[in-house]
Amino acid sequence: MGFSQDNLKGFVLALSSSAFIGASFIIKKKGLRRAAAASGVRAGVGGFSYLLEPLWWLGMITMIVGEVANFVAYAFAPAVLVTPLGALSIIVSAVLAHFILNEKLHQLGILGCVMCIAGSIVIVIHAPQERPITSVQEIWSMAIQPAFLLYVGSVVVLVFIMIVHFAPQCGHSNVLVFTGICSFMGSLSVMSVKAVGTALKLTFEGNNQLLYPETWFFVLIVATCVITQMNYLNKALDTFNTAVVSPIYYVMFTSLTILASVIMFKDWDGQNVGSIISEICGFIVVLSGTILLHTTRDFERSSSFRGAMFRPFLFDFHQIILINFVL
Amino acid sequence: MGFSQDNLKGFVLALSSSAFIGASFIIKKKGLRRAAAASGVRAGVGGFSYLLEPLWWLGMITMIVGEVANFVAYAFAPAVLVTPLGALSIIVSAVLAHFILNEKLHQLGILGCVMCIAGSIVIVIHAPQERPITSVQEIWSMAIQPAFLLYVGSVVVLVFIMIVHFAPQCGHSNVLVFTGICSFMGSLSVMSVKAVGTALKLTFEGNNQLLYPETWFFVLIVATCVITQMNYLNKALDTFNTAVVSPIYYVMFTSLTILASVIMFKDWDGQNVGSIISEICGFIVVLSGTILLHTTRDFERSSSFRGAMFRPFLFDFHQIILINFVL
Repeated sequence: MGFSQDNLKGFVLALSSSAFIGASFIIKKKGLRRAAAASGVRAGVGGFSYLLEPLWWLGMITMIVGEVANFVAYAFAPAVLVTPLGALSIIVSAVLAHFILNEKLHQLGILGCVMCIAGSIVIVIHAPQERPITSVQEIWSMAIQPAFLLYVGSVVVLVFIMIVHFAPQCGHSNVLVFTGICSFMGSLSVMSVKAVGTALKLTFEGNNQLLYPETWFFVLIVATCVITQMNYLNKALDTFNTAVVSPIYYVMFTSLTILASVIMFKDWDGQNVGSIISEICGFIVVLSGTILLHTTRDFERSSSFRGAMFRPFLFDFHQIILINFVL
Repeated sequence: MGFSQDNLKGFVLALSSSAFIGASFIIKKKGLRRAAAASGVRAGVGGFSYLLEPLWWLGMITMIVGEVANFVAYAFAPAVLVTPLGALSIIVSAVLAHFILNEKLHQLGILGCVMCIAGSIVIVIHAPQERPITSVQEIWSMAIQPAFLLYVGSVVVLVFIMIVHFAPQCGHSNVLVFTGICSFMGSLSVMSVKAVGTALKLTFEGNNQLLYPETWFFVLIVATCVITQMNYLNKALDTFNTAVVSPIYYVMFTSLTILASVIMFKDWDGQNVGSIISEICGFIVVLSGTILLHTTRDFERSSSFRGAMFRPFLFDFHQIILINFVL
């Protein structure tokens, strides 16, 4: 297996991040319910009484802890490993909802959980090792290699065309336009989040990277990408059903992030073909499990609290959550 | 990957076996439909007009070709590789049914197909290599090693207890009794089928194995196990719904076969932990995909022809099909 120390740290961080985020949904929802019971008005209908409920705030804090862990995980392990593991938070929340909130998990939902776990194990076993990075300039030199510049160029052109041409024309009829913009920008923001995370990690290790303009450039990219992403994600959610947007976004975003990481960090160089294929299969299995879990949630749930439960699925796209909270 | 020549042959044979068997269901069903249209009586209601329908016989021949290919596959590749690939015949039949019979495949069914394929790829990549076997005595010596004798002994005792004690008492209320007997016997019959197949392969290569009593002993075991299996499988099907029996039987039978093969042929010796875990995960994924595909078939199908379609799923347990046909 040759699982490096850094990969292990990243793996544990990604895992605990998923546990925290998954648990946070449940805590927040318990808070919402309690607030609704106390005031008689539900959040969905305009009440804000949940802001007085300590449980809701505890959930919020749990979520932030989870997001920070996810951010730090990117500094240690390749995105090919960290990004797909985000799906595990859905399992945690589904299982906890079953036991704590008495939201019955459909039998096929259990199958979805099993698949997510099996797929994650395959991914973890075949995760590539990252070569150690010693300065932000090293990341910079990866970012300006021709192949990655070509990727960035294509993304920028595509997103530009989608915003200028397709969004006004068919953005409100075709779900792929807004979610496409979010996913493409998302792949760039994860890459820059990884750069910023690595710079911070090196800084904490005593190797100050905040002196270099490259660090701040990456911070600027993070901010730009995330704001664009948030903007169009909200548009997508306003226009289409969350149940439609979420799986499409998850699949596109995760796939593009892995593609970007493979190009920029050359994750797959030096790996044998079998490992790469296994990783892709593992990824497909996790995606299928996620879709299955997501679809079967519809089967048994009553329509009340629907918004409150679907929203969390969306929050799984870790890198945007903190900003979403701040904005 | 280190995929040996023999593994490749076994893999191609198992794959074409699944294609033939999967296609045979569709051809037979088309034959049944045509016969029903011609005579006005359906097979399920007692008509035998399908015996005059050439299409039905073509389907039967296709199935026998598939079963022979499956039998030969066991002579070349380890059971750990061949057995789980049997699930692919379900995909072939589901996809063909979608296009040829216009039986709409549920969206989750497509997901099940994708999973079966992804899981199979992981299994194939990590399949162990078999050491070349040069005589039936070699297989005999593997069969009489203490660990495998312990397995056989436990199986015989367990099956005996189930037949004598549990079958009369709760065989008609608990689905696990009859299917358990079938699955345990099934694991032994696959091992002896593999022995007979290997002996035949060596004989065709000019190294006559039919002179040795061991070969005929294994033939005897195949016959005994398969007849027991058939007997209790029919009891299970008479007592319980096929939709309940099939997935349980598939999971138990495949798991026990892999266990028996790992003990007898030491498939996992010399494999690293990562490969073994990947294989198990791949197997779990294939099982989940099979269950998903099987469950969602229920969602959209009308109740007519139900028996006709469920029966085929059962036929997937390759090693018993020929006998089922003969008896």
